[in-house]
Amino acid sequence: MKNLILASTSTLHGQEYLEYILPQLKQHFAGCSEILFIPYARPGGISHKEYTEVAAKAFTKVGIKVKGIHEFEEPREAVAKAEGIFTGGGNTFLLVQQLYTHDLLTPLNTAISKGTPYLGTSAGTNVAGLTMKTTNDMPIVYPPSFKTLGFVPFNINPHYLDPDPNSTHKGETRETRIKEFHCFNNQPVVGLREGSWLEVKGNDISLKGDKTARIFKTGKEAYEVEPQSKLNDLR
Amino acid sequence: MKNLILASTSTLHGQEYLEYILPQLKQHFAGCSEILFIPYARPGGISHKEYTEVAAKAFTKVGIKVKGIHEFEEPREAVAKAEGIFTGGGNTFLLVQQLYTHDLLTPLNTAISKGTPYLGTSAGTNVAGLTMKTTNDMPIVYPPSFKTLGFVPFNINPHYLDPDPNSTHKGETRETRIKEFHCFNNQPVVGLREGSWLEVKGNDISLKGDKTARIFKTGKEAYEVEPQSKLNDLR
Repeated sequence: MKNLILASTSTLHGQEYLEYILPQLKQHFAGCSEILFIPYARPGGISHKEYTEVAAKAFTKVGIKVKGIHEFEEPREAVAKAEGIFTGGGNTFLLVQQLYTHDLLTPLNTAISKGTPYLGTSAGTNVAGLTMKTTNDMPIVYPPSFKTLGFVPFNINPHYLDPDPNSTHKGETRETRIKEFHCFNNQPVVGLREGSWLEVKGNDISLKGDKTARIFKTGKEAYEVEPQSKLNDLR
Repeated sequence: MKNLILASTSTLHGQEYLEYILPQLKQHFAGCSEILFIPYARPGGISHKEYTEVAAKAFTKVGIKVKGIHEFEEPREAVAKAEGIFTGGGNTFLLVQQLYTHDLLTPLNTAISKGTPYLGTSAGTNVAGLTMKTTNDMPIVYPPSFKTLGFVPFNINPHYLDPDPNSTHKGETRETRIKEFHCFNNQPVVGLREGSWLEVKGNDISLKGDKTARIFKTGKEAYEVEPQSKLNDLR
């Protein structure tokens, strides 16, 4: 049975890394003594080791050890044997390029199908969708494909941001970008605001956190769904 | 002799399309009775025809006709024979995919080398750099490469935006994104603010408009350059 937490962000303004969601993570990874961290999206040029230490520090608070996938000789085997998996945020293009380089898409799908608990934040959530075509990130590297893991049957836009009514900047708003995505792609998109996450338990997909999420479908007006809503029919 | 205007944006807040730069465009395209418009980045799902009409309306004011590249049976020939070329903004991934599909990179380089005046705005400016890896756009389609035209020996980030000191949003700032780009790429990046443009005349590259531009190089602190500065040594 699938068992996923797909969070918009790792960190809320003024808080520690993962602080806002630690109680849920304790429950989510109950029974895991150690989880596997995938630091491939590493933000800001820090090393895999440094990034893994950030994750480990947060998980210490709930008594769970964290080991980085870069510490294993066989990343595919590390995924297969992991008690739990956490893919951190950063740059989605880099993450996807690394997932392909290490040939991890199939092992990750196999692990998630057999019920290994998974946590994604930001880029780690984006790759749980059908494609990475709704990322906000800069294309700093060229991945061999934009196809991602498809743990859920739609796309996700993490860090979803409402248009600023006072802005004079002419760059596209997030909503405009997703509408443009729908000129060329059919799958729905969940705009997941910071502080929100999707909880996937088998076939049940629920919106969690305090905020509504914005749902985009081809040819329809975007609409909001309330916290605790089920998104089981979204595909 | 190269003769280019590479503008950050087509439109300033509260103004008409190209309004702020029309006097320069009249001069830039002096001697052209008709210019070729490349609407491939078409924003917001409008048709090539509709987008070309937007460009044509602006150029009417300076007595220049505009014909869209989609109106030609042979786009490569249209580029070769054009008196002037304008590539409009929209989505850079879409633009680059279309440039490759129509095999236009070589004809565009040939035309620009022989002195055909070129105007780019936003995505049309981004593709004048070495790669599209510093675009702000959403990857709604998968282009066969991120390599672009290289009219200038660096990358450009159009719509450059300073960090908002009051923001509580955890998405990366533009500066952070460009720093991440430099973890994996060596070429300098020009952060071009809205209302600014680069004027390329042969080997001379000058910053124009009222605003400073922000220059990013690997391993160096980012710095500002004043309007009228030459960027001839940036590579």
